[in-house]
Amino acid sequence: MSDIKEKNKLKNAPLSKLAADMAERARKASLVLAKAASGPKNDALHRMARGLADRADYIIGQNGKDVEEARAKGLSAAMIDRLSLTEDRLARIADGLMQVSALEDPVGEIVHMWKRPNGLLVGKMRIPLGVIGIVYESRPNVTADAAGLCVKSGNAVILRGGSETIRSNIAIGEVLRDSLKGAGLPEDAVQVVPVTDRGAVLEMLKLDEYIDLVIPRGGEGLIRFVAENSRIPVLKHYKGVCHIFVDETADPGMAESVCVNAKVQRPGVCNAMETMLVHEKIAKKFLPAAAKRLEDEGVELRGCERTRKILPGIKKAGESDWHEEYLDLILSVKVVKDIDEAIAHIEKYGSMHTESIITENYTNSQKFINGVNSSTVMVNASTRFSDGYELGLGAEIGISTSKLHAFGPMGALELTTTKFVVFGEGQIRE
Amino acid sequence: MSDIKEKNKLKNAPLSKLAADMAERARKASLVLAKAASGPKNDALHRMARGLADRADYIIGQNGKDVEEARAKGLSAAMIDRLSLTEDRLARIADGLMQVSALEDPVGEIVHMWKRPNGLLVGKMRIPLGVIGIVYESRPNVTADAAGLCVKSGNAVILRGGSETIRSNIAIGEVLRDSLKGAGLPEDAVQVVPVTDRGAVLEMLKLDEYIDLVIPRGGEGLIRFVAENSRIPVLKHYKGVCHIFVDETADPGMAESVCVNAKVQRPGVCNAMETMLVHEKIAKKFLPAAAKRLEDEGVELRGCERTRKILPGIKKAGESDWHEEYLDLILSVKVVKDIDEAIAHIEKYGSMHTESIITENYTNSQKFINGVNSSTVMVNASTRFSDGYELGLGAEIGISTSKLHAFGPMGALELTTTKFVVFGEGQIRE
Repeated sequence: MSDIKEKNKLKNAPLSKLAADMAERARKASLVLAKAASGPKNDALHRMARGLADRADYIIGQNGKDVEEARAKGLSAAMIDRLSLTEDRLARIADGLMQVSALEDPVGEIVHMWKRPNGLLVGKMRIPLGVIGIVYESRPNVTADAAGLCVKSGNAVILRGGSETIRSNIAIGEVLRDSLKGAGLPEDAVQVVPVTDRGAVLEMLKLDEYIDLVIPRGGEGLIRFVAENSRIPVLKHYKGVCHIFVDETADPGMAESVCVNAKVQRPGVCNAMETMLVHEKIAKKFLPAAAKRLEDEGVELRGCERTRKILPGIKKAGESDWHEEYLDLILSVKVVKDIDEAIAHIEKYGSMHTESIITENYTNSQKFINGVNSSTVMVNASTRFSDGYELGLGAEIGISTSKLHAFGPMGALELTTTKFVVFGEGQIRE
Repeated sequence: MSDIKEKNKLKNAPLSKLAADMAERARKASLVLAKAASGPKNDALHRMARGLADRADYIIGQNGKDVEEARAKGLSAAMIDRLSLTEDRLARIADGLMQVSALEDPVGEIVHMWKRPNGLLVGKMRIPLGVIGIVYESRPNVTADAAGLCVKSGNAVILRGGSETIRSNIAIGEVLRDSLKGAGLPEDAVQVVPVTDRGAVLEMLKLDEYIDLVIPRGGEGLIRFVAENSRIPVLKHYKGVCHIFVDETADPGMAESVCVNAKVQRPGVCNAMETMLVHEKIAKKFLPAAAKRLEDEGVELRGCERTRKILPGIKKAGESDWHEEYLDLILSVKVVKDIDEAIAHIEKYGSMHTESIITENYTNSQKFINGVNSSTVMVNASTRFSDGYELGLGAEIGISTSKLHAFGPMGALELTTTKFVVFGEGQIRE
């Protein structure tokens, strides 16, 4: 790690200067944005939404060049679809910005306030974190979505998207910056890194005096790269190995529909179910019907020994299957003795992301909620709801499976911290 | 950094095994403690308090050996006083544990709860962080104070105190562990590292799969050592360069008494004032009287040019003085044009710890509260109140000047995080 950094220090002198310049400008802008009232911030978000519509031709034109290059490089049709922008997609991005503008402004809220025996009035006030770096490789909508949440929460942001959408990101960034300026806010509160060199990310990750938080979004490789090279705190999750436990007392119809939804509604995302745990007393009744519905949807099942006694046609699940985030129409299935074995399995193989129990038993619902060590724990609901929008945070900047600062889906609130404010009348300490 | 680690890997094979064993046992104990109700946790805290009284002779005996060795090594009288335990000091530690037991249990609290349009009930539930490592070099009271707060908040703790109090810490640790056992809780929830080798700290700092948070307490050297060698998130503050700004409209008597208190009541701690900023329009009136009171208390003043025009007898403050945490009866003084210059000075030289304004002007009080980027910002109060007990957190495990997770004094609440809990009726995502 230090070796890579050392090598890059020499090779990337211009990159280190670029990163430091951007970070310094972001820091300055963040001090202004931190004090901005909700009015100008929401004005900027409205202007961003309008700007994306007004300048759709320009953005789509720049995106066309990205798409052309991606085709020339032979990227898959799925990849090209992911990075393509249309008027409709831009309209949805603009709609997201309008939704963020409608959220409550978290900054300045006094979270608690209490009076001390000596008369001091002590409160905790929500404040922005400062400067946030977002490193992503996904669709260009992240550029606007992440910037919108950062501006709403009073943070400056440095955006470093994938090289395959560099022109699209820069074009969107121009609209966002003009909108800030139009609202009387510093345009440097949103900056898109204009180069595709990975060295720029490395340089950015060194700037812990200017950048308060880095959020990597993308595949496990990107996230590990960021986590291992960062001097700045990183909020992240590597993967989502989500479980559903179908308890003895589950309503079989509900268990079926929830499990099918959690597996097939969008299998390529982190909150899709990867392992289904089934109580031994319901397995014989539940598994054949559930397997039929899952297989009708094209799901390949891989079972433990006991599962395969009930479903003899399916593949055997090996030890590695319990660790696997398939991100595909594959599901591992295990029959367990009871809820304790289910919780122990999750403790051993889970990723602390999202788990759900399907049960009609009160005690077990409480045991699961309290006993499972994951960022989102559900009763009788699909794991697919583990998402900032779906949980009602208004929008999502990422998901954290580390417990410090934020645990689970992160919205605007998770981009703030609190400081103590103390109002006295001349008190001194005895 | 990696080199040190690599070297130690070979040299300290037994230490790495010791650290891993302790961390694994702590992890196991943490899973039990996380689910423990307030009853047994408070029972353990009461038993700890009683145990320290009942076994005072044993603890003081072990402490005597530490003191003897410290004397033989020629430690200063002040140092020896710091590490000495008496019945009275043990009684105060026990009292602290009783106070912690009386705090509200933060674990299990539902912080928010809301209903989604599809009927899902979504809440955020407070949970412990898991395993916390405390690395300290200060008085043996930290052993019991930190352990008490960790147990209260449902966390297991690994305590690594200074080598000069190793016997005292182990003796206190025995009482704490027996108390946990007596309350039916796992004794491995509190463990004292039994060796003085610094390699043991290095080994502990690698165990990010078992330990969730490290809190270093002590001098800047220790804190930097921990921060630079840790793979585990670290909550810390390097130093406290605290400022008081005496505004134009300050009540001069209040300004004097608050500034004297903030400087002299206990100069060797992080929340003592190190720099006094004085509005130019009050300087001529305020400075001579304040200087007299401060000098009467033995404070050496170092001033900027403008200060020295009013107080010609004092030393000149150089650029390095504005960065200095004296931890002593020395104070740097600067005359500023207005509140903006005061805030800019704090932004440039401050440590984001604690700053206070003395003013009767409403607008400036708000400007200071909102504009100063520190973990604790005060109006008309002594910076010495920036402390978990004094602010009403019940107790303090440390102070954070990084904005992630916690910012400012940290109590039991800051040793928790929240997870999402979701109660459904079979909802699936469309």
